[in-house]
Amino acid sequence: MSGQNTSGAPPAAGGGLLDRRALFEGALGAGLLSASGAAAETLGDPVWTQKPGANFTPYGQPSRFESKVKRVWAPPANPATPGIGASRTPHQFLDGAITPNSLHFERAHGGIPDIDPEQHRLVIHGLVKRPLVFTMEALSRYPMKSRIAFIECGGNGGSLSQPVAQNVDAQAIRGLVSCAEWTGVPLSILLDEAGVDPAAKFVFAEGADSAGMSRSIPLAKAMDDALVCLYQNGERIRPGNGYPVRLLAPGFEGNMNVKWLRRLKLVASPVMTKDETSKYTVLLDSGKTWQFIWPIEVNSFITRPSPGIGMPGPGLFEISGLAWSGAGQIKTVEVSADGGKSWAPAALQDPVLPKALTRFRIPWKWDGGPALLQSRSTDAAGNLQPSRAAMIAERGLRGQFHVNCILTWAIGANGEASNVYV
Amino acid sequence: MSGQNTSGAPPAAGGGLLDRRALFEGALGAGLLSASGAAAETLGDPVWTQKPGANFTPYGQPSRFESKVKRVWAPPANPATPGIGASRTPHQFLDGAITPNSLHFERAHGGIPDIDPEQHRLVIHGLVKRPLVFTMEALSRYPMKSRIAFIECGGNGGSLSQPVAQNVDAQAIRGLVSCAEWTGVPLSILLDEAGVDPAAKFVFAEGADSAGMSRSIPLAKAMDDALVCLYQNGERIRPGNGYPVRLLAPGFEGNMNVKWLRRLKLVASPVMTKDETSKYTVLLDSGKTWQFIWPIEVNSFITRPSPGIGMPGPGLFEISGLAWSGAGQIKTVEVSADGGKSWAPAALQDPVLPKALTRFRIPWKWDGGPALLQSRSTDAAGNLQPSRAAMIAERGLRGQFHVNCILTWAIGANGEASNVYV
Repeated sequence: MSGQNTSGAPPAAGGGLLDRRALFEGALGAGLLSASGAAAETLGDPVWTQKPGANFTPYGQPSRFESKVKRVWAPPANPATPGIGASRTPHQFLDGAITPNSLHFERAHGGIPDIDPEQHRLVIHGLVKRPLVFTMEALSRYPMKSRIAFIECGGNGGSLSQPVAQNVDAQAIRGLVSCAEWTGVPLSILLDEAGVDPAAKFVFAEGADSAGMSRSIPLAKAMDDALVCLYQNGERIRPGNGYPVRLLAPGFEGNMNVKWLRRLKLVASPVMTKDETSKYTVLLDSGKTWQFIWPIEVNSFITRPSPGIGMPGPGLFEISGLAWSGAGQIKTVEVSADGGKSWAPAALQDPVLPKALTRFRIPWKWDGGPALLQSRSTDAAGNLQPSRAAMIAERGLRGQFHVNCILTWAIGANGEASNVYV
Repeated sequence: MSGQNTSGAPPAAGGGLLDRRALFEGALGAGLLSASGAAAETLGDPVWTQKPGANFTPYGQPSRFESKVKRVWAPPANPATPGIGASRTPHQFLDGAITPNSLHFERAHGGIPDIDPEQHRLVIHGLVKRPLVFTMEALSRYPMKSRIAFIECGGNGGSLSQPVAQNVDAQAIRGLVSCAEWTGVPLSILLDEAGVDPAAKFVFAEGADSAGMSRSIPLAKAMDDALVCLYQNGERIRPGNGYPVRLLAPGFEGNMNVKWLRRLKLVASPVMTKDETSKYTVLLDSGKTWQFIWPIEVNSFITRPSPGIGMPGPGLFEISGLAWSGAGQIKTVEVSADGGKSWAPAALQDPVLPKALTRFRIPWKWDGGPALLQSRSTDAAGNLQPSRAAMIAERGLRGQFHVNCILTWAIGANGEASNVYV
């Protein structure tokens, strides 16, 4: 890896200086209050200070001034079947690590079902001693655990496999990853109750959507940290994310976290469903295919600046972004302003949780010249996020799944950011 | 404290057995699938498996089957001025530690203002070298931090100071505490930029609502961990929680976390505003008053079972609840089923974060008899949550602020839970 510089003096990067310890004092956008101008004059008497405000609401919504902050999705191939595809999280407008439920990405293969929880059942059957059926009410009596975890669609970043960089934003490229506090029943408890036959090696998980989306989960994962989830960020899971119940397979590719979960069948070998054979596999140039690539690879990207969220002008600015890995905790994130020639370490926001989005931040003193901003992360298992060139050298350009390469934002002299390949 | 039993054999508590290590295997609500009944027969073909589901939405909402999960509030004294009072979080329907933004409690003294972020300004003035004015755009360029923190209204639990127990639920009694991931600029950075005069000892913080809600924050707190927040659970703060900018004073009583923040004035001594003299003080029986009781005391309550969320029947059930302290982390939570005669330790959900809601859980084998469920928490500073009797003995019944006493749910033979005083 060229130009590595992760300690000591900050690198004199193209476009300016990156330094985690830079001081922001007196250098940013605050204006000075004029000597004669009292605070009251500056603040004035806006209308909202003059009359009583609005009433409370049973279920709150954002300010009307935030209407630009929304999920987007491509129209379906067939207009008669909407809700097939994916809606994307607008990371360029967010901060922190939690994704609010209303903006969590959604992936659906047969639209979003409107499930009545009173009628919905979860069945555990196949290679078990006692096949079981659960009402949602019964499930809610079981012991639960909560954990903050990311979920990422295996197809996130797929556009980076295209030969020419598209003029799109962070939401379009990396909007299929989100993070929430998930609460549910450890799957191991339910499987213990059913009594798993020693011949069972996989759990076939099936959704109650019209696509019958289904995957084969290795039994070891099911017994390790999988949760049968009822709650997302405190409240019941949203319809687009699996209401009334979904599987959480922390760190595994999105569609293994089966939504609208209705069936768990213990089986001896993978079922080879359409969702793990024709899709969610990577066809290499060699003609061979990667299949059952379960854990999400180490990844990161910069959310601010990014296309649509440009630099306000030369001077100090805090670069902010997100990192994650299906292998566990993020260990380091480095940021480059010269397209990967030199790197400086970013600060990671505590607590750094395993298999969760991790916010990173680093001050950048932009000199106003052209710059190529990148981030790369390393996880606790030692995996380093690859460059796009290295990824393509390994896989070719066919693979549109598990694309975890470095993303580059070019900063123009006008401060605007754009997606480029370097 | 009588009947303490926090290790070794679980206590044979009134109403049943409490034991963190109890096994749920085969003991809960799952039904057996009949030998003849195939999974397909049991699951049937509900309508949502038969036709494509709905389209994606730009900004998602809960399932229509969750309409009962909502904030509630008392009507205002004057119908001409709605939005004066507080809306409460429905903790009995939630799990985990994060409160979704739509259900975070709201307290307003002059209704919820509809602030245009382009027009809004934040001024820092008073005993400073350089009085400053910030646009929201300028503020968003500063370095930020994120932290998960509770905010609790100083009046939460005030009804427990009434002489007779009311027939109300957890939301009515303890709904004025919520928890979110807050992201903002450390106040210390902004104060350093303004240059604090050594004579300054307090920061007077004022909101842009029609009530001009304001408090005097000790400078030491402002320089320690206060944040000038723009984001709540990832997205911009909701109007009811201070859009476009609020103060977070982690662990301090709710109204010190001034919403709709427009002014920070450095002063030598407290300003003695209406919100820190006539309100948010505790009048003792002695005639003396507690004033400037900033940090929230150690607290906890059981969310499940609770009024409206009764026991499904005798047998194993997971008791679940929330604990918090303005002094830092929660160290232990104990649960009693016999009104405080004996106690058993609950499991705390990792990560246990300082000044954040902490979820606790403990299995309870209910024998079907009458029981008195209680929880009590201890924080890392060693503070133990008091019984209601002990709190009243110290303060009398006048104090309706900072009421952190133990809450008791009586479980009747029908499994229903009700609020009682013991």
